[in-house]
Amino acid sequence: MQSAGELLLCHGYDRFSVDEVAVRAGVAKTTLYRRWPTKDHLVVAVVARMQDEVPVAYRNDVRADLTRYLNAIVDGLHRMRLAGRPSASGDTSAGVVAEVAAAAARHADIGAAVHAMFLRRNALVLRMLEQARDAGELEKGVDPEVVFDQLAGALYYRLLITGAPIDAAYVDRLVASVLRGASG
Amino acid sequence: MQSAGELLLCHGYDRFSVDEVAVRAGVAKTTLYRRWPTKDHLVVAVVARMQDEVPVAYRNDVRADLTRYLNAIVDGLHRMRLAGRPSASGDTSAGVVAEVAAAAARHADIGAAVHAMFLRRNALVLRMLEQARDAGELEKGVDPEVVFDQLAGALYYRLLITGAPIDAAYVDRLVASVLRGASG
Repeated sequence: MQSAGELLLCHGYDRFSVDEVAVRAGVAKTTLYRRWPTKDHLVVAVVARMQDEVPVAYRNDVRADLTRYLNAIVDGLHRMRLAGRPSASGDTSAGVVAEVAAAAARHADIGAAVHAMFLRRNALVLRMLEQARDAGELEKGVDPEVVFDQLAGALYYRLLITGAPIDAAYVDRLVASVLRGASG
Repeated sequence: MQSAGELLLCHGYDRFSVDEVAVRAGVAKTTLYRRWPTKDHLVVAVVARMQDEVPVAYRNDVRADLTRYLNAIVDGLHRMRLAGRPSASGDTSAGVVAEVAAAAARHADIGAAVHAMFLRRNALVLRMLEQARDAGELEKGVDPEVVFDQLAGALYYRLLITGAPIDAAYVDRLVASVLRGASG
């Protein structure tokens, strides 16, 4: 898995291959293909492992806790966006995130794996939001699932759809807007 | 453009081709290729035209106005997700939205076209949110750009990343959560 992660971030999605991972890890190709039948299966496993490297914890300050977690997501998205890109190139290889989303839409089994990965991971954040609610930091009627969709969704929307920048300043604006609400 | 839209929604992204659009529209292929050098350029033009069919207007009830607009987005996303899918099939062709996002990440010129399309379109919604703020329906310090990212982002996140359903009931939860805010 470590070899796979290094190759994915180094080469990007297009030039990533199960065969090369096998060479780098010094294992038989058949061993890898038995567990990950296609490149997409292996990419999803690599992304899941990257996600698991980021801790999710409620430390009694929901604004700081969300800000920390969203900045970690932004870091991960940037690493996957830049993966495989020749420096100073205009027309670049695809971002890994966009390719994973396309593969998830294209193949039902990849879609199921991607959805399960995010369901498992996001459950940790929902638990954090529930703890903040129980501690009185969030309002009683808060909808944790929707609140997290607003936060993570805004980041992915800018990355995949509008191309607008996502950085620490944007994360601050986003967390402030979600916590405050828009109603006058 | 009408032929192109019909073919895209009927056949889906994979089986959509500039050549077939030319046949259906009764024009020379070269005419189309001069204006849209690749299939992706034509797909972006079709999506932009679909977006323009949905009116954006502030009618002095920001909750109702946002709900109406987001439900129109959801309808469009479902049409593009189902495009080209054989009915009752598990493993299906890619959703058009996911393919457009992947193409935008893969080719700088397609990315620029996609970003410009959303920038132009979303400017109308930002104007609507500013009008609602000026009318006192949204708070003075509201961040229209971020608020719209929270709304649209949540929909695209569920469509492209988590696979969670998006329907009218979800739109209601989303609008309520964004307007109310999460803070206790």
